[in-house]
Parts: sequence; structure tokens; C-alpha cells
Amino acid sequence: MTDINNMIEQLYPEMVEWRRDFHKYAESGWVEFRTASLVAARLEQWGFEVKAGEEVIDKDSRMGVPQEDFLRRHEARAEQQGADMKWLPRFSGGFTGVVGILDTGRPGPTIGYRFDMDALDIQESNDQDHQPFADQFASVNDGMMHACGHDAHTSIGLGLAKLLSAIKSQLNGRIKMIFQPSEEGVRGAKSMVEAGVLDDVDVLFASHIGTGVPLGEVVCGSNGFLSTTKMDVSFTGVASHAGAKPEEGKNALLAAATAALNLHSIPRHSGGASRVNVGVLNAGSGRNVVPASAHLKLETRGETAEINRFMFENAQQVIKGAAQMYDVEAKIDIVGAATSCNSSPELAPYIRSQAEQVDTVKSIQDISSFAAGSEDATYMLDKVKSNGGLASYAIFGTTLAAGHHNEKFDFDESVMIIALKTLALAAINIEQLAKDKQILSH
Amino acid sequence: MTDINNMIEQLYPEMVEWRRDFHKYAESGWVEFRTASLVAARLEQWGFEVKAGEEVIDKDSRMGVPQEDFLRRHEARAEQQGADMKWLPRFSGGFTGVVGILDTGRPGPTIGYRFDMDALDIQESNDQDHQPFADQFASVNDGMMHACGHDAHTSIGLGLAKLLSAIKSQLNGRIKMIFQPSEEGVRGAKSMVEAGVLDDVDVLFASHIGTGVPLGEVVCGSNGFLSTTKMDVSFTGVASHAGAKPEEGKNALLAAATAALNLHSIPRHSGGASRVNVGVLNAGSGRNVVPASAHLKLETRGETAEINRFMFENAQQVIKGAAQMYDVEAKIDIVGAATSCNSSPELAPYIRSQAEQVDTVKSIQDISSFAAGSEDATYMLDKVKSNGGLASYAIFGTTLAAGHHNEKFDFDESVMIIALKTLALAAINIEQLAKDKQILSH
Amino acid sequence: MTDINNMIEQLYPEMVEWRRDFHKYAESGWVEFRTASLVAARLEQWGFEVKAGEEVIDKDSRMGVPQEDFLRRHEARAEQQGADMKWLPRFSGGFTGVVGILDTGRPGPTIGYRFDMDALDIQESNDQDHQPFADQFASVNDGMMHACGHDAHTSIGLGLAKLLSAIKSQLNGRIKMIFQPSEEGVRGAKSMVEAGVLDDVDVLFASHIGTGVPLGEVVCGSNGFLSTTKMDVSFTGVASHAGAKPEEGKNALLAAATAALNLHSIPRHSGGASRVNVGVLNAGSGRNVVPASAHLKLETRGETAEINRFMFENAQQVIKGAAQMYDVEAKIDIVGAATSCNSSPELAPYIRSQAEQVDTVKSIQDISSFAAGSEDATYMLDKVKSNGGLASYAIFGTTLAAGHHNEKFDFDESVMIIALKTLALAAINIEQLAKDKQILSH
Amino acid sequence: MTDINNMIEQLYPEMVEWRRDFHKYAESGWVEFRTASLVAARLEQWGFEVKAGEEVIDKDSRMGVPQEDFLRRHEARAEQQGADMKWLPRFSGGFTGVVGILDTGRPGPTIGYRFDMDALDIQESNDQDHQPFADQFASVNDGMMHACGHDAHTSIGLGLAKLLSAIKSQLNGRIKMIFQPSEEGVRGAKSMVEAGVLDDVDVLFASHIGTGVPLGEVVCGSNGFLSTTKMDVSFTGVASHAGAKPEEGKNALLAAATAALNLHSIPRHSGGASRVNVGVLNAGSGRNVVPASAHLKLETRGETAEINRFMFENAQQVIKGAAQMYDVEAKIDIVGAATSCNSSPELAPYIRSQAEQVDTVKSIQDISSFAAGSEDATYMLDKVKSNGGLASYAIFGTTLAAGHHNEKFDFDESVMIIALKTLALAAINIEQLAKDKQILSH
Repeated sequence: MTDINNMIEQLYPEMVEWRRDFHKYAESGWVEFRTASLVAARLEQWGFEVKAGEEVIDKDSRMGVPQEDFLRRHEARAEQQGADMKWLPRFSGGFTGVVGILDTGRPGPTIGYRFDMDALDIQESNDQDHQPFADQFASVNDGMMHACGHDAHTSIGLGLAKLLSAIKSQLNGRIKMIFQPSEEGVRGAKSMVEAGVLDDVDVLFASHIGTGVPLGEVVCGSNGFLSTTKMDVSFTGVASHAGAKPEEGKNALLAAATAALNLHSIPRHSGGASRVNVGVLNAGSGRNVVPASAHLKLETRGETAEINRFMFENAQQVIKGAAQMYDVEAKIDIVGAATSCNSSPELAPYIRSQAEQVDTVKSIQDISSFAAGSEDATYMLDKVKSNGGLASYAIFGTTLAAGHHNEKFDFDESVMIIALKTLALAAINIEQLAKDKQILSH
Repeated sequence: MTDINNMIEQLYPEMVEWRRDFHKYAESGWVEFRTASLVAARLEQWGFEVKAGEEVIDKDSRMGVPQEDFLRRHEARAEQQGADMKWLPRFSGGFTGVVGILDTGRPGPTIGYRFDMDALDIQESNDQDHQPFADQFASVNDGMMHACGHDAHTSIGLGLAKLLSAIKSQLNGRIKMIFQPSEEGVRGAKSMVEAGVLDDVDVLFASHIGTGVPLGEVVCGSNGFLSTTKMDVSFTGVASHAGAKPEEGKNALLAAATAALNLHSIPRHSGGASRVNVGVLNAGSGRNVVPASAHLKLETRGETAEINRFMFENAQQVIKGAAQMYDVEAKIDIVGAATSCNSSPELAPYIRSQAEQVDTVKSIQDISSFAAGSEDATYMLDKVKSNGGLASYAIFGTTLAAGHHNEKFDFDESVMIIALKTLALAAINIEQLAKDKQILSH
Repeated sequence: MTDINNMIEQLYPEMVEWRRDFHKYAESGWVEFRTASLVAARLEQWGFEVKAGEEVIDKDSRMGVPQEDFLRRHEARAEQQGADMKWLPRFSGGFTGVVGILDTGRPGPTIGYRFDMDALDIQESNDQDHQPFADQFASVNDGMMHACGHDAHTSIGLGLAKLLSAIKSQLNGRIKMIFQPSEEGVRGAKSMVEAGVLDDVDVLFASHIGTGVPLGEVVCGSNGFLSTTKMDVSFTGVASHAGAKPEEGKNALLAAATAALNLHSIPRHSGGASRVNVGVLNAGSGRNVVPASAHLKLETRGETAEINRFMFENAQQVIKGAAQMYDVEAKIDIVGAATSCNSSPELAPYIRSQAEQVDTVKSIQDISSFAAGSEDATYMLDKVKSNGGLASYAIFGTTLAAGHHNEKFDFDESVMIIALKTLALAAINIEQLAKDKQILSH
Repeated sequence: MTDINNMIEQLYPEMVEWRRDFHKYAESGWVEFRTASLVAARLEQWGFEVKAGEEVIDKDSRMGVPQEDFLRRHEARAEQQGADMKWLPRFSGGFTGVVGILDTGRPGPTIGYRFDMDALDIQESNDQDHQPFADQFASVNDGMMHACGHDAHTSIGLGLAKLLSAIKSQLNGRIKMIFQPSEEGVRGAKSMVEAGVLDDVDVLFASHIGTGVPLGEVVCGSNGFLSTTKMDVSFTGVASHAGAKPEEGKNALLAAATAALNLHSIPRHSGGASRVNVGVLNAGSGRNVVPASAHLKLETRGETAEINRFMFENAQQVIKGAAQMYDVEAKIDIVGAATSCNSSPELAPYIRSQAEQVDTVKSIQDISSFAAGSEDATYMLDKVKSNGGLASYAIFGTTLAAGHHNEKFDFDESVMIIALKTLALAAINIEQLAKDKQILSH
């Protein structure tokens, strides 16, 4: 334990450096070219077997992938910003996932750790009171910012990988480090599940920093995520001159407007919380033209997968009906999805017993449920559990300068020590859990 | 002419008596059982060949026919109110049309006259300042009232029939007196056209009293009618408890509400005036029940048949789309229809030359166009014109106590003399028109 | 206990007779003239001090009171159906509440029992498979039916009153029997609270039969009621001819339709369940008239009073905005209200210990929470608790022939024995509760 | 006449050159810096008294003026593209109007000619089959294109100015050349009227090329323009996380959507054609955020100013009501307006008699009315007529390569000869009109 404490103390400055580097070169979903290439290079350097790109990302299960030319432009940008050129080509076309495997050679379960790497489409603040700007590691990529803490997640993952490879002789079974792209918009996890990445994982730890939990507090199993579906909808009608020939138009704007209203009128569900939000509506080209096109960005959510399905099916009906009303075409693209979260209750005491060994941890909750956002690691948890394994989603609290997704988001970096220690101990002591729960290695 | 003037002077008190009798026993569309039976009996008495009921009404072309039990109840009511028992059975089931034919035996065109007989679904005023009430001929039939003047139309028709039969020896060709049911809601004319009633008519005169034209003025051809379609729409969903199981309902009320809004959003038409009106919406059963049913009464109109078709087709799309949105069933019943009006321009001077001979006529207009209501005699005009004949819709102005469709509607009865004389002269002098226009008898 | 069992056995046939009599002469909210007069007469006969009418109903706190002439017509109807003529005048004008007080003369708390007496506006089934119809006690009052079991509640209340007066010498403190009008639509309880009826009650028992709980099961405290507000909304615009002068109309139907849609679009609430339902919409007078009036019946609900307030305040905004859009007047009448339910947790074990003594009780639940309908006894519970007393809402399960509010609703009458015994024991053993909880008599 | 024909023949190549130059350096509304400066310089050179900038543009009557930095950027652009540096500063800040006055020194009326100079916000086609592109005078200004023919109008105006100044000795009274900015979006004319530019004009000629009229045809008075109001509407609400705190949002998107629907439901008008179009709706920032802002671009139109006022007033009601519904702020900016067109009927025969003298004119219409777009020269016509003068809007037909406002719009430039000759003759022969109509010079 002393050894590990010392090792972590030495690792911490490096983790801070990594985190600030990732923060500076923030990359949003499916264009984490630089980040993923550096992760892959380091994992390889530390002795991990590295799988990357289409090996770990199922092409057709990706959601919300940007246009080809956007991908190409950002691959070029990554090259200029110091991506690892050995690995970069593996991610070409938006396959920015990395998996590192450390086999101890000894029997034991396969432990998976999942970290997300993507930034948000937000313009970072350049106020002097925003620490990353004052300290000159604010994002240099226009309109992209690590405003949710995935830069910390990636650094914790790297720190954990370096630590575990250093103490490999003390470990059993296999370690699987999973670096996921495109969690924002819940677009990436499903493609790693479908590529089989989780098939051999016996125990999965996913985690997040912050989320309103104070520094020093650990939540062993967070179940507050809603099942969700993200949709882009396009209505295509026919333009005409609004003064001269109004009857020749097919009005896509009115189809979208009536869809928006009626989407929000989908009934509440007695089975639990439901949500619907048309977050963006853009329609029409000119004041005096009957609008021929309209685009909606919307999402449904439900406390359970069933409730979200109810919302989603109703949403489809509404959209089709709106299109029929105005004799326009409607196209629905699923651009994101996540299910609700059910952390294995058996895993909470195990995580608690590790967190109790971390000196800066002051408070521990077993299971927390608060209706909040959504998270696609839930697909991974579901997969592991459906294979008979255990999975939990933990929260490591930290002090925030501003809320998640805010242009001045920042956090107390010392949370990375708490996360690193807790997660490392979870690997070191896994034999005890394996015995208790009779988890067999695959 | 002196003779006719004398005859009309003698006829007038009888016409007033008839009119007040019809007014007192007001009968709305498809239940004009008493009125039609009395018309048939008198036509027969005056030597007309009489056709009635299904002979002159095509069953499947009727629109907006009331329920069976309503028809039966009113047939019984008519019997109690002095219907002619020889003719009453002919109208059973709602076939309340009558045609009387007077063949002079001499060559000449077939002249058709069309009169409508139905009252409105309005409760007549029982204020002392309402003349029909003060003079004790207000409607005794609850919720039915002659508030549009069709009682006058029927009496003019009867007066004209009696007069022409009396001067049969001065006439040529054939006279066809057409008494139509159910003009209100434009439900009846089409069924007489489809029954072939107009097939042999060479010259058709349809007419209306009042409509804002002052007493003493005659409009020879009124073209201000809009093409129209009347629809009843039912949405059928699924009820559920709004508190306990909102998600189990299929909301017919919201489908109807969104239909109503989007119906009114159908584009304007650059080709001319268009209209849409959802006049009635009734939905739902109880405050705490997701509404399982909704009913709309609506109409579309257009300055031309084409514009009305545009409105009607869009309306169908909107209704179907609204049903799809809420996963409910929609049923559309066409309960009335009329086309726009195009009086033969050649007929106006002929009518003018007759009206000029009427001493109480002070002013004559040839053609008038003002966007107003709708009238299904237009189907009859179209039919006659498509057969190469001439047809016109005339207005005989009169002083009104209150507007048409008002519960205090009443009019100066002396208009009946003007109408009778003008229409009689139109038959007497027909040879002149026939020569001018080379109209051949069928 | 044997005595009481015997007494109840003797009472039961009379309770069945009462229940069937109330069922046959079903009276809906605020016109329970016959029911209330019979209740008052019997309470008086059994030695209760009886308060009735405006003594126990605060005039201005009544909600959803019918029109004057409806009240008058039903008072006359009650007279013909055998109302007690001494008491009937006390209820004139719709003050159909009764309270009976039994003072034992001994110290002890005041125990309140609340029963509701009103029927629903439902036409009872006349199918032979509907027991009340087959047995000839189906409702003779057109469109009114006891389809929720309040006939049983009233009978249980009467049985309990008769029993407790018979064993008065074994009791302590005071017994207060509260017979409430107009629970359906949650319209009556508040007026009894505001009249001060609950001010001196130390322990309150309210209850319901059925609600999906099986025969033999007792729920000691049911908290599944939602806070709710019931509203009637009238929009008043200006009529005009839809063809001739559409621009002169102020369209109340479209205001109502857009209100309905946007009411259902009020946001979900993260604090818990919310509901909104526009259950009824009636608008317009004729197909070709721009509709000048529209009426909505709607309700909002919330898991907490705060959530319902959020819904209600938003609803008001939507209604006002819709009126402004179409330049029409909107009038909102609150016609019902109830708060959410919080049975005293301390009372559940006490009720349980009584129910355990009832031989036909097979299962007992302490507290149940299921999001369901609403109930205005909650105002009474709140009042008692805010005065430092205890209050609980119990469910006595029974077998149902069809669901509550269904035209074939019926139930196994033997539930009345279970309810009567449990509630009687709750009075008999009150001293024990009073000591445990240090409840002082007022 | 021969002289003039010769002069025009010599002028034509120069006009083509000017037109292509203006086309290449297309400038949209309020940024016609280069165009206006060149017009002013040439007018001055040809002996006109020149007024420019704030002298002829009333600051507060301008509508739809772009942001300050846009104006500044384009002023700089104009400088680089060869604007006349003497005049350019006069237009700084978006006052891009020019008036040139030629006083003959002889008595006679003041004749005004109005030409518009602005391009559209359209990206010009770069297909080889688009003549301006093939001949290398396609617009070099990104997103701006002369797609309506105002480049021709400006050139005709310049040709006319040069010609009239050359034959000044043959003319009487005063000539006033009015070069107007920002006709597209009907934003500029009112500011010139309010600056007094039209106050002394006795006879006004405004005109347009093309509009579907074939080459060789002249329409002396076109009355087909609709009265119109252009509005930008902003709704401002409150953002919140759509999953975590939906109840904390104030939804601007739904306010805009319900506004759009209900705007299109404003009633038709029996007085004539009406129009409403929400041409653009942009709302919201992210899929999972309750939208805090929404922007609409919309317009109303009416066959008469009264009908447009009806539409506009209803539109304001709808927008305010929608804002109230969702408790958001609404801001309405009027960004354009024009009235309907009533060319003086007395002027048509005069224009006809000039056009008859033009050899390439093949057909002449006096007055044409077709419901079409809108045009703000109508404000100028109204002003002149209200002062007792005469005013007409003429059309000079030409062959079009593609419709107005199309990215491939182009026309047969020889129309410029027809327009120039007709308009020049209208000045040369003005004495005759002045005598006939007793027009006095101001």
C-alpha cells in the first residue's frame, strides 16, 4: 500500500500534465484523433496489447458520425497538433476507440475499466477568471472544449494503465482498459459493445468525476441515468413564393412546428419519469419563401428502457403524422442512444471497501438515484451483466468552478488521485471479490 | 298582362296563407314531410304530373341525412300536423323531393323552376317584436325555423304552379316545377341532379329572396356563391384514466385540436378566395378521462371548384396526419357540397326584360358577384348548362326584419308578388328567348 | 368482542338494505338531498347531536356547484323519492353535508370518521349480467349512478353510528360522524374544513372500499393520491359568417384548440409525477359560423402540492396566452381541488392492530403509495394533522364486478363487515392509542 | 427623334458596360457603397446637383439595417473595389441613397424617376451555362447577386441622366433622378419619402424590367403589388437541462412553433387577398437543452393596406399570446414595409403614347393587376399622389434566362433601350401632359 501511495504521488504530476494537454487539444465526438493516438502509443509503450480503430468500433453501430470532410479536416488538424503518426491512420474515418489488454498470465477474472475521451461542441471561455485560460491550457480548437471532465477521465485511465503495468506481478487475471469515443450525445458505447469489446469482461468499472458530488465523496453505484434516444429529423417540402403562389408550397416549417408542439404533448407515463425535448429547430431560407426544409434535433428519455421506448414510438408517430399533414417528407436519423443504469448491487460493498482505504475519501454512498442526464456506458454495463458479470458506475466527487457543459467548467484535479487509488485497489484486491461472488474468468 | 295582374292579386292572399302555414310547421332538411306532401297534393290538384320521393331523389347522392329514428319521429310528427296522407308515404325515409310537370302539348323548350323547402335548425324567437310570433305563426316545431325564407320560396313556387296551370293555353313547351329538400348545408340538390331531374331542362330559373338586396330590386344573375364541401369528422381513440394510466390513452381530443389548428393553416390560394372553418368541435367524456372521441363539423370553400378542391384535399391530409400523430382512427363523412355559380350571361337580359314589366320593380342588376355563402342549386345550373341549356340564379330583394339565419328573421311578403310576376312572364315570353338563342326542346 | 360480532351480524342485513336503497336513488354531487336527509334523520334517532347544511358547509368554499334550477329540480325529485321532510329544507341550495356528534361524557379524544355520499354522472348499465339491475336496485335517476362505492361508504357510516351509539357506555371521548357531499370532482371536503368541522378532531379515519385491493386485505394508510386542481374554462369570442366575413370573427374554438395542445406541452417536472388532462372540449355552434364560444374541462395533478401548483400556474399562462392570440375572453373557474395524501405513519400500526382482530381479514399493508387518482379527504387529513392530531386514509379491499367509474361497477358487499368492525374497534380501543401518542382531547 | 435614337445607340454599349460592372460588384441592401458612389460621381460629372447620404435618407425610417460591423466591413470592401472616394464617406453607416437634380431653368413640372440599386443575398451560379459567369461578370461578392435586375435599373437611370443632361435645352421644368437603396425586403423607399425627396415631384415614373412580361411589351401601370409588413421576431426564454430540470426552462422554441402555427391560422379576409408567411424559424442551442431563444422572419401581405393592417395586427396578437403561454419575452422588429400600388389611371395613356414611338415595342398594356410580390416604390407613388401629382409604375418586358431571385437569373439587355427611350420621351413631351392635366410645377 505504501508503495502504491508513493507511485501515485509520483504519477500525479504527469497525470495533471496529460489532462491539461488533452484539455488544450480538445476533440469532440468521433474526431478524437490526437487523443486516441497518444493513448494507444502510451498503452503500447507500457506493455499493453493494443487494439484500435475498426477492431474495437463496429462501423454500423456508430451514431451521429460527422460528415466525411469534417472527419478528414480534423484528422489533418490532429496531425498538426502532434498526434502519434504510427497510430493515427488506424482511426481514419472516425473509428477513434482504443482498447489495451494486460494479461498477468495468472488465473483470475477479466476486469474492464471504461473511460471516455471526447470534448463538447462548446466555445471555451477566455475570461481571466477561468483557470484553464489563465494557465494557458484553454482549448485551441475552435468550438470544442472539455467541459465535462473527460480529459480527467482519459488521464485517470492512463495513470491507472501505467500503475497496473508497473505492479503486474501483484495482479491476477486480465486487465482491459477501454477508451471510448463520443460519449457526448451517447453515440459511441454501442459500437464498442457491438464490436465485442465487452464480451469477455467479468467485472466492469465505469466512472465519472463531479456531477455535483463534493470532493472526497465516492458514490459506488450511480443509477440516476435515463434511457434515451437522440434523433435528427429532416422535413423536406417544396418552396414557392409566399406572395405569388402560396398554394404551390409544401411547408416544412409548419410541419416541424406542429411536430414540436405535439411531441411535447406525448402523454406522461405512470411507470416513471419520461422526457422529450426538441432542442433545436432550424427551418426555412427566406422571409418570402414557403419553407422547403426544416431540421429538428430532439431526444426522448425514460426512467426505464420501456418508458423511453414508449416516448420514442410516440415521437415517430407524431413526426410521420406531421409530415403527412403538410405533404412533406420526413427522415428520422437515430444519432444517439443509451439505456438506463442498473449498477450491480453486489459490487457496491466491494467498491466501498476499496474507497475506505483511500485517505482523502471522507464519505461514501452505496447506491444513488437521481433523475439526471444519460450515459451510454450503460450499454456496457448491461452487456457485462447479461453475460453473468458484475458492473457498476461510480462517481468521484470534486469541486467544480462551474457546472458541467458550462463554458467555464473546471474542477479540482486532486480528484484524479482518489479515482486512481480506488480503481487500482479494485484490481489489486479482485481475488477476494472473485471468491465471494464466484466469478469465473472467461 | 292585365289578366295576369288580376290573377296574381287574387293569388297573393293565398300565398301569404301558405307561407305562414309553412312557417308555422317549419321542417328542416330531409324531414320536409308535411311540406312536400302538401306541395305534391296541390300540384296534382292543379293538373301537374307529379313525381315524388325516390323517383326524383337519388338515394346514394343524398348528403347529411339524419338518423333513421329521427326520420321516423318526424314522419309521425308530420302526420299529426296535417300532412297529406296520400303522398306522405312516398317521402318515407327522407326522400322529400317533389317535381311537377305541366306539358302544354305545344312545341317549345322545357322551363325548369327550382324552389327549396327546408327550414333551419334554429329556435325561433318568442319576443313580441318578432312578427311571426306576435301574429301566431311562429314555428311550433322545437329547434326548427324558416329563418332563410324558403317558406316564401315554396309559396312562390305554388303560386307560380297555380297561375301557369290556369294560363296553360297561352304557354308553349313544358313547365317543370322542382321542389328541392335540404338546401341548408347544401345537401339536397345533387341527389335531384343524379336522379335525372334536370336532364331535360332547357332553361332553368333558380332564385332567392332577400340576401341584402332591397325591396323592389331584382338581380338577374347572382354569381357570388362559393364552391364548398361540408364534412363531419370523427376521431376515435382509447380512453384511460388521466391520473393513473395516461400512457394507455389514445387522445382523440388532441388529434382534433391539432387538426383544427392545422386546417386553418392550409395555405391561401393565389387563384382567388378560399375558406376553411371548423365550426364545431366536441370531444371527450369527463375531466379525468383521456378523451376517446372527438367530432368536428367543418367546411372548405373556394371561389372556383378548383380552389375548393385544393382546400378539401389539403383538409383530408391534415385530418389523416392528425389521426396518425395520436394513433387514433379518423372518419370523414361528406355531408354537403355545392359548386360555384356561373349564371348564363345570355339569360340576364331576358330576365331583365321580364322584370321591367313588373310595376313594383324599381331597380335591376344584370350580374352581381359578392363573395358570400354557398348554394347547391349551382349543381342544377351546371347540369343544365353542360347540356347546352341556359340557367340563372336570380335575387328578388326584400326588406328584412333581421338577417338570414337570425332567430328574428322576417321579410316583407310583397316580394312574393314581384318574384311570381317575373318568373311567370319568363314562361309566357319564352318563345322569344328560344328563338333568339336557338334553344331546342329536348 | 362477541357482543360486537353479534351486533354486527344483526346490523349487516340492514346495511345491505340501506346500501341498495342509496344505490337505487343515486344522487350526484351537491344534490344528495334524499341521502343526506335520511342520514340526518337516522343519526338523530340514534341519539346523535346533528348538524346539517350551512352549519357544516362553508358556502364560498364549495366548488363545482350546479346551476340553481338544477338544484331546485333535484330537491323536488328527492321529495318525491322519500326524503325526510324534516331535514330536507336544511340542505336547500346545495348544502348537503351532515355531521353527527356522540359525546360519551367521559374524557378522551374526539374521533372523526369521514364518509362520502355522492354518486357519479354515469348512466347505469341495464344488462341482465349487472347485478344491481338484475336485482332491481339499479339507479332510477337518469344519468346518475353509484359507480364508485360511496353507497357502501354511507351505509358503513350509518352502521358504525348505530353500533357506537348502542355501545356508548363502553366508549370514551367524543365520536364525530362526518358525511361529506360531492367527493367526485373533489369539490366538497374543503367546504367542510372551512366550516370548522375538523377543528376539534384529534384522530381522523377516512376510508374507501375496493380500488384494486382484494377482499380480505386492509391498507392502513394509503398515500397514493395526487394533488390536483380541476378547472372549467370558457373562451368567448365573436361569431361571424365563415364564408362571407371570416375576418369579423374572434375564434374561440381555435383559442381552445391551441390551449389544449399547449396545456399538454407544459414541461414534465423533475420533482415527481405530474399530470394534465383536457378531458372535455366543446366549441362552436354551426359549421359555417366562426365559433364564438368554447368550453374546456381540465385538471392538473402533481405528486406534491408544489408540483401541482407548477402545473396549475403554467396552465393559467397557457390559457391566458391562447385567449390573447385570438383576442377572445377567457374565464377560469376552479371547480375542484385536493391535495396529496400523507397518512400519519404513527396511525398505521394502530389500525393494523384493530384489523388483526377481524376474522375475515387475511392480509394487512401498513402504507401503500401508488400514483392514482385524487381524493379531497386529504384536506381533512391535513387539517387534523396541522392541529397536532393523527389522520389516516384506509382501504378495505373487495371483489369488483367492473372497475370504479364503469357502468357495471359492483362489489362484494361483505366488505362492509370488515370496514365496520375495524373502524368500530378503532373507537373502542382509542384510549390505548391516546395514551401511546399522548393525544389530548380538545 | 432621330437625334435621340442616335444618342441612345451610342449610349447603349456604355449602359451594358455599367450594368455588367454593377453586376460583378453586386451589393445588397444598405451596403450599395460602391454603386451609390459611382452613381453620384457620374451625376455630378453630367451637371446634376447631387444630394446623397443623410440628405436623402431619413435615419429613423430605414428598416432592416444590418449590424454596424457588417456596414463597416462592406464600406472597406467597396473602397477596395473602386468606389469613388470623394462620395464614399457620404454613405458611411448605411445611407446609400443618391438624388440628382437637373433644373432646365424653364417653367414646368418636376419629373421624378426612381431606380433601385441593391442586389440580393443569393450566391450566384458558377455554371458555364450561366451567361454572367461564362462572360466573367458574375458577382465577386460572396452571397450577393443581382438576381432581380436592379443592375439594369441603375444603368437605365444613368443612361437617362446622361441623355437628358445632353438635351437639357429641349426640356422644361426640373428632372429629379432618384437612386434608392434596399428595395429588396422593402426597406429603403420609406426613408427617402420621409427625408422629403418626393415632396416637390409632380410626376413620378417608377419601373421594373421583366416580371414575366415578354420582350417588346410595356405595361404602363402595374397595380399588382400587395401591401406588406416584414417582421423579425425574437423570443427569449430560459435554458435548463432537458433531462434534469425540465421545469426550470422557459421554452422559446415552443413559443415560436405555436406562434408559427397560429400565425398561419389568422383568418382569411373577405375584402381581398391576404398572406402570411413565417419564412425562417431558428431556435435552440442543443438537443438536451430547453431552448432559450428563437427567431422568426415573417411577413404579412394584403391586397389593400387595410387588409395588411388586419393581418399585421392579428400577427402581433398571436406573437404576444405565444410569449405569454410560455412565459418568455417577445420582441418584434419591423424590418420592411410597402403599401399596395395604385398607378394614376390618367398617366397610362401618356406613357402609352410615348411607348408607341419606340420601334422595338410590340405590345402595350395600360393597367395590369396580378397578385404578386411587393414593392416599396409604392410609398413614393402614394406621396406624389397625395400631393396632387401623378405617378405610375411601369414594366418593361424582357426575356429571362431564369426567374427573378434565381441563382441563374439573367435577361436580354436590349430591354434597356426600350426603357431608356420611353422614359426619355416622357420627359421630352411632358408639357403636353402638364397642359392636359393642369399639373403645376411646385
